[in-house]
Amino acid sequence: MCAVDSEVEVAVVGAGAWGRVFSSLMLQAGAEVSVWARRRESLSGLAGMHVSTDLNEVVCGKSVVVVALPSAAVREVCSRLPLASGASVVSLSKGLEAETNLFMGDVLAQTLHISPSQVVVVSGPNLSAEIAEGQPSGAVAACLDLQRAQEVSPLFSTHSFRPYLSTDVIGAEVGGVVKNVIAVAVGAAAGMGYQTNTRAMLITRGLAEMARLGKALGAQEATFLGLAGVGDLIATCSSPKSRNFTFGFNMGSGMKREEAFSVSAGVVEGARSARAVLELAGQKGVEMPITAAVAKVVFQGGTVEEMGEYLMGRARKMDGVDIKFV
Amino acid sequence: MCAVDSEVEVAVVGAGAWGRVFSSLMLQAGAEVSVWARRRESLSGLAGMHVSTDLNEVVCGKSVVVVALPSAAVREVCSRLPLASGASVVSLSKGLEAETNLFMGDVLAQTLHISPSQVVVVSGPNLSAEIAEGQPSGAVAACLDLQRAQEVSPLFSTHSFRPYLSTDVIGAEVGGVVKNVIAVAVGAAAGMGYQTNTRAMLITRGLAEMARLGKALGAQEATFLGLAGVGDLIATCSSPKSRNFTFGFNMGSGMKREEAFSVSAGVVEGARSARAVLELAGQKGVEMPITAAVAKVVFQGGTVEEMGEYLMGRARKMDGVDIKFV
Repeated sequence: MCAVDSEVEVAVVGAGAWGRVFSSLMLQAGAEVSVWARRRESLSGLAGMHVSTDLNEVVCGKSVVVVALPSAAVREVCSRLPLASGASVVSLSKGLEAETNLFMGDVLAQTLHISPSQVVVVSGPNLSAEIAEGQPSGAVAACLDLQRAQEVSPLFSTHSFRPYLSTDVIGAEVGGVVKNVIAVAVGAAAGMGYQTNTRAMLITRGLAEMARLGKALGAQEATFLGLAGVGDLIATCSSPKSRNFTFGFNMGSGMKREEAFSVSAGVVEGARSARAVLELAGQKGVEMPITAAVAKVVFQGGTVEEMGEYLMGRARKMDGVDIKFV
Repeated sequence: MCAVDSEVEVAVVGAGAWGRVFSSLMLQAGAEVSVWARRRESLSGLAGMHVSTDLNEVVCGKSVVVVALPSAAVREVCSRLPLASGASVVSLSKGLEAETNLFMGDVLAQTLHISPSQVVVVSGPNLSAEIAEGQPSGAVAACLDLQRAQEVSPLFSTHSFRPYLSTDVIGAEVGGVVKNVIAVAVGAAAGMGYQTNTRAMLITRGLAEMARLGKALGAQEATFLGLAGVGDLIATCSSPKSRNFTFGFNMGSGMKREEAFSVSAGVVEGARSARAVLELAGQKGVEMPITAAVAKVVFQGGTVEEMGEYLMGRARKMDGVDIKFV
């Protein structure tokens, strides 16, 4: 345990695409930024920042620590993270942990032995390559402690990147996880040749199942109408720059599952999360047909043709009250 | 006034792109279809249908009349439409009438002297070219009288086109009008070089202003999470096949307003509707910044650069309660 410096210095744990771009945003916003990665080669090109492969060196004494790890690495790395008492943890990691079905914010609180109100979840339509280019983007910074979100968010607020505050942490977490699963399905539909109408319908039904799960877990429906919900979903489902979309697209175009995994430029969070999301939904009695279809293809050797038939064949008439769940 | 035949025969008034494709859907679904257009050349290629430029010939005795006219033509044509007593009117026309600020369903009820519960509004992610290709699509069929929607919708339900029922007519009308306005703005942003994140943010904020107006007019928020809301908005804002998107894109790319109008392949409903939507919003005390920006460019000679600055510069922090209005 180390003491908090009086000056705001920020540590970033993880130097993947989003971690690197987020670090640059904070540098732009005037923060002193230190970045950790497991391997030194991941730290090249981070001009103006302190970089190290030593967690202690990067994290000690920092009042704000940004966690930008793939979800599968969060528990292992954070269990040896020397967090200062009272520090804020900004989570860029999205996913449900496989064994525990915990969202990343909860994994952080558990492994770092901190209050959940110290965790700020950042989520929104944030394709990192575009943010690196200075394209205008917004995100939700959600924290149970609104004041903390208010204090932390200026650290990553720039002319082109705007954080909006929220207290709906669960909503932001659910949005950040489920969108990746839906993107796999939409990518698969695109790969199979389905066009705008079909994809818009699939995104709409995906939003509905995301909102259903969120509400069952205590999130606010309004979050799903905002940047962390539909905003992020649209971006993730629209762009070939999204790994989840691309993975789905490749499978939809006829690539075998193993090959689709092997050609992916990084971790396919949506494929990894699908089963955990489905389990959580099952525990809450929530129906998530698109997630179920993705899980079937990824984990049970289902074909995308079956998935397509299943997804497209499920449409049925329903009345106005249920229309939100189309 | 004519009597209703015992057999289901359907009249389609208007033979634009959507009217023609919708006619084909009904033919596929087994209906006998008669189509009217002002000019004979608009009626070519409608195999298997009865076609005529004589309104009486097409409409008399039909228990279901589909109105597929550009919004500006609805009042004039429908005021001389010989509707059978008790007939159902399916409205594919979207827009707010300029002078009266009435939605098309209300214009239909008024000019045809029928109850609003006889009008079924069809709205959804329905780019007509894709439906013509048999791409799977869904739409909402909204009617104050749910039973009527139930009876009419099988007429246009096919293997690839699925109508969902709703009683939220206002929600469907608002979605069908405002999406065109937002599509002009998103098209302009795309034309100016803004990419996925920015467009997703703009669509999200557009959905919020659509939902705000809808709620003020008595619509259900859930409708905007469905096919007639976010579904249609995503499709309209995603595709260069949308005239509204293309009009905005052309202006965003530097084309002058007059030229953008003249190269358009048809009526740009979003440009036409922007001012009426804004007036209606003003009457209800609803803020619609994106619509205001579009109206300024279309009607007051504002430049797209000003629009871009206005749209992108408005972002501001807000708390969780307001996040739905991001």
